[in-house]
Amino acid sequence: MTNKNWFALGIGKKNKKGKYLDMYFHPDNISSSETNLKETPEHKLVKVSDDIPPSSVPEAYLKLHLISLRLIKPNETNLDGIFGILPNVAWTSIGPVDVEELAGKINENKIKGSPIKVFSLDKFPSLLDYVSLIDVRIADASRVRLGAYLGAGTTVMHEGFVNFNAGTLGEAMVEGRISQGVVVDENSDIGGGASTMGTLSGGNNIKISIGKNCLLGANSGLGIPLGDRCTIEAGLYLTSGAKIEMLDETGKIVESLKAKELSNKTDLLFIRNSLTGAIQCKKNLNVNKLNEDLHDN
Amino acid sequence: MTNKNWFALGIGKKNKKGKYLDMYFHPDNISSSETNLKETPEHKLVKVSDDIPPSSVPEAYLKLHLISLRLIKPNETNLDGIFGILPNVAWTSIGPVDVEELAGKINENKIKGSPIKVFSLDKFPSLLDYVSLIDVRIADASRVRLGAYLGAGTTVMHEGFVNFNAGTLGEAMVEGRISQGVVVDENSDIGGGASTMGTLSGGNNIKISIGKNCLLGANSGLGIPLGDRCTIEAGLYLTSGAKIEMLDETGKIVESLKAKELSNKTDLLFIRNSLTGAIQCKKNLNVNKLNEDLHDN
Amino acid sequence: MTNKNWFALGIGKKNKKGKYLDMYFHPDNISSSETNLKETPEHKLVKVSDDIPPSSVPEAYLKLHLISLRLIKPNETNLDGIFGILPNVAWTSIGPVDVEELAGKINENKIKGSPIKVFSLDKFPSLLDYVSLIDVRIADASRVRLGAYLGAGTTVMHEGFVNFNAGTLGEAMVEGRISQGVVVDENSDIGGGASTMGTLSGGNNIKISIGKNCLLGANSGLGIPLGDRCTIEAGLYLTSGAKIEMLDETGKIVESLKAKELSNKTDLLFIRNSLTGAIQCKKNLNVNKLNEDLHDN
Repeated sequence: MTNKNWFALGIGKKNKKGKYLDMYFHPDNISSSETNLKETPEHKLVKVSDDIPPSSVPEAYLKLHLISLRLIKPNETNLDGIFGILPNVAWTSIGPVDVEELAGKINENKIKGSPIKVFSLDKFPSLLDYVSLIDVRIADASRVRLGAYLGAGTTVMHEGFVNFNAGTLGEAMVEGRISQGVVVDENSDIGGGASTMGTLSGGNNIKISIGKNCLLGANSGLGIPLGDRCTIEAGLYLTSGAKIEMLDETGKIVESLKAKELSNKTDLLFIRNSLTGAIQCKKNLNVNKLNEDLHDN
Repeated sequence: MTNKNWFALGIGKKNKKGKYLDMYFHPDNISSSETNLKETPEHKLVKVSDDIPPSSVPEAYLKLHLISLRLIKPNETNLDGIFGILPNVAWTSIGPVDVEELAGKINENKIKGSPIKVFSLDKFPSLLDYVSLIDVRIADASRVRLGAYLGAGTTVMHEGFVNFNAGTLGEAMVEGRISQGVVVDENSDIGGGASTMGTLSGGNNIKISIGKNCLLGANSGLGIPLGDRCTIEAGLYLTSGAKIEMLDETGKIVESLKAKELSNKTDLLFIRNSLTGAIQCKKNLNVNKLNEDLHDN
Repeated sequence: MTNKNWFALGIGKKNKKGKYLDMYFHPDNISSSETNLKETPEHKLVKVSDDIPPSSVPEAYLKLHLISLRLIKPNETNLDGIFGILPNVAWTSIGPVDVEELAGKINENKIKGSPIKVFSLDKFPSLLDYVSLIDVRIADASRVRLGAYLGAGTTVMHEGFVNFNAGTLGEAMVEGRISQGVVVDENSDIGGGASTMGTLSGGNNIKISIGKNCLLGANSGLGIPLGDRCTIEAGLYLTSGAKIEMLDETGKIVESLKAKELSNKTDLLFIRNSLTGAIQCKKNLNVNKLNEDLHDN
């Protein structure tokens, strides 16, 4: 984390009590210097520092924009306390609505016969409602939160998910879930329904990362940080505490160790032996390559 | 199931043949007595009893509203035959549209150059299009059906799903799928992609429930009712017929029994031994606690 | 693949440079002969042949419409190169928007205080925005791409997904993911979160299919083509290279073979033995039947 400062002009929506529900920042209105940024009645001037946690809705939104605009990488800006700062907002076809005002809006519109659509009731909006990217695909925008970092050439399929402060550093195929804090390096493939353990819920406290040219098979799961060129077989959930048989090149078991001891190691293939049921690890000979057709966005 | 009666004034939309597509009930227009509820041209008076199945679209919608408004818990009102009663409706950016009229609407709007958006073609709408809750979060509204019961402090993440007549009784984290009829007690966590077996399809006929302070790990699955303070390891699918090794406190296998014999038992941890491949059960020493930051809605 | 020709009149939207973003075809404007189809300023005449790959956006969209309208089955028309032909489009509440123009649209609408909603940034749109079907249910329209083939009586639940050039031939329950090229025969049930391996990413190159009356259990996975009346236990991922114990009717292991040797074989039940961890296969005695209540659309 640096102590870099950021300045920006934002447009926010307020609730009836005058509190901000959100704030939008056009990339041209963000700068590392205050010069040329003039506050107006419509545009609020907002400042943040990477090493200081956000203290307001505008500051939190600026930090989330900075990540999604690729100006800061995940885990490089202090987001402590962001859940407490962000209000719960109804994201609707008429824009953000304060949760306290939602019941009234629904009722009013049902009476008028022109129902509003409520897309989400959450602290975080969808990335694509605030930030436009031209070099990625996001099949279902509701599954990528503002604050996600998507490297150029990333495809997030319908079953993919990317939380805030998490993402992919380069070209990637994302059909599984990238939890808060998790970073995936280039040319890796997170298979359909694959899980990366997060630290926000479920009791896990190891920060997961995934190296280059890795493949998490469909419906697999990952509880340790993975080095480059690793593959996890489809359907295998690798928790950090699992004991694993290490095989040599002849297929002989040479030792048993805990998955977490393999953290950040490269060139590993993890499978569950389909006859003995044991989780096994050996040298990975089929390294993941992305399908170029799919990533030429 | 009680024989309690409910009365309400609803606003419904009809198709061209005069049949109701839906009905909306404002909470102030629902009562356990008929007094003060006056039918008007716009507001239809609807009555239901908990022990009598719904016989019309308005009655079915009233029952679904009652559950989502937390006036009735799941499995406490008779919903027999609801699939036959509810029409298949196109839920669109211009509101509910009869499926027979959808092709025409799409065509008309394409010609005009102002395409309509079709969100769903289904018998059940999204909860948040009818009922407003201020003390929950629902990251993707399309994944919680009207008729879901969400306890105060529940967060349903993007991968979570809650069917009608199912839900959480108190604070909970839902990142997996809660099938029809399934009830989750307070302070439990349904991990990302976790499955609870339903009784509507797939051949299962045991009604699943989950006790307090339970954790279904990511990509796990549950085929038995679970008592309080139980944990299922990430990636493990516990079907009711699975044979399980029971371990004592020293880790010794003391007996083997079927998962269904452990129905509703408390304080159990289920894992798959990563070396032998056997499903094992022992006393659960790390009971699930929710992350307070995430649930302070 | 036949060499059948198709003719149609379509309505398309162009970007500022005059390139098509999409094209919509009403079923009445599609024919196997050119007679009576007259091009107008609004309606463009488009021709395709099953055995010739699409060479433009209108041709690609016509082929996708033909599949979703059930005029051609999956894998029966040449779609080579479709990823290169289709542009990446922002699918929004104001219709399709060129990705290059999206940033401007977002900004303009934030300033006006009437934000647009971006649903997707992808090469393929949602089926239901182009094609209306009266005999299926699709709980979440964002999960079924234009070009999916849904047989009459198919229900796609919230966790279901159907890619283009893939689908179900008759009545089916889809709560899992049907990858590009995968075809599911009638009366089969793809359980919640179940995965069918595709050939577009992840390194697999066997085309998967599923016979009649099959059941993929929740969170299971499939890496081989499956014959009729097969069941895969919930939670089991059957990769093509897995070695499997074959059991006779007394439960005795008679041989071990690779999953791919069982391709297209009928009446098989696949489980993982919960005590030994071995994947086992035996005669399937409980063949899948769909719940009629759910499929009477």
